[in-house]
Amino acid sequence: MKANRVTLITLGVADTKRARTYYEALGWEVEEDLGEAVFFAMNGMKFGFFTLEGLANETGKPVEELRTGAMTLAQNFSSPEEVEAMFTRAVASGGTALAQPFKTDWGGYSSYVADPDGHVWEYAHNPFWTLDEEGRIA
Amino acid sequence: MKANRVTLITLGVADTKRARTYYEALGWEVEEDLGEAVFFAMNGMKFGFFTLEGLANETGKPVEELRTGAMTLAQNFSSPEEVEAMFTRAVASGGTALAQPFKTDWGGYSSYVADPDGHVWEYAHNPFWTLDEEGRIA
Repeated sequence: MKANRVTLITLGVADTKRARTYYEALGWEVEEDLGEAVFFAMNGMKFGFFTLEGLANETGKPVEELRTGAMTLAQNFSSPEEVEAMFTRAVASGGTALAQPFKTDWGGYSSYVADPDGHVWEYAHNPFWTLDEEGRIA
Repeated sequence: MKANRVTLITLGVADTKRARTYYEALGWEVEEDLGEAVFFAMNGMKFGFFTLEGLANETGKPVEELRTGAMTLAQNFSSPEEVEAMFTRAVASGGTALAQPFKTDWGGYSSYVADPDGHVWEYAHNPFWTLDEEGRIA
């Protein structure tokens, strides 16, 4: 498992339709539109939007306090146990726990930690996304 | 040239040494430390830190107004002309020009545009970074 990995960049947006229109005007091609969330495939990782309310709800921060947390970086792992190990390591290293590891309503396992500057990381296991041996989304 | 590309994620940080210590504690391996900026190699892209003052100076936003702009996404291009074309396209699509295309003091060519939700993108040409035919950092 490579440590140097971002597997998902999520932008908090006021309106996923408006955001989709803008990125499509730039030539981006949508992979999946779930309404509240939209995903684009990139090179071994994904890029997406999530409503500001949805992000606030997941990270436990009110919308008006999201600041840099209105954009989150995620690292995906192959199991819930790896998520817990990474969450524990990040907090022990000086990160701030925002959301303890929890079962998500979409069938995954997730957690949120802010780094020393307040940048929000999600450490997650998504059973519907396959990771290759290099930690990239296959 | 693939549109769906992020080639650099930059976190604005108060202290690059503190940030480096934290990410190294998580197992990350530094590729290059320039003091004011630190870079990590990932899969076809880079991850890095830049001082909040440096980011504020480049994007033209005061530190206290950086908000989500304290984390920037960048797409690198093979020439200054492509940077200008992308900058023009983004602004025509509803993006907000933060910094018109300019020659950087590190020998590159850059520009900054905020998307409709205020997320800051850098469109840049870095003559020292090689892009493959898929738009990834080689």
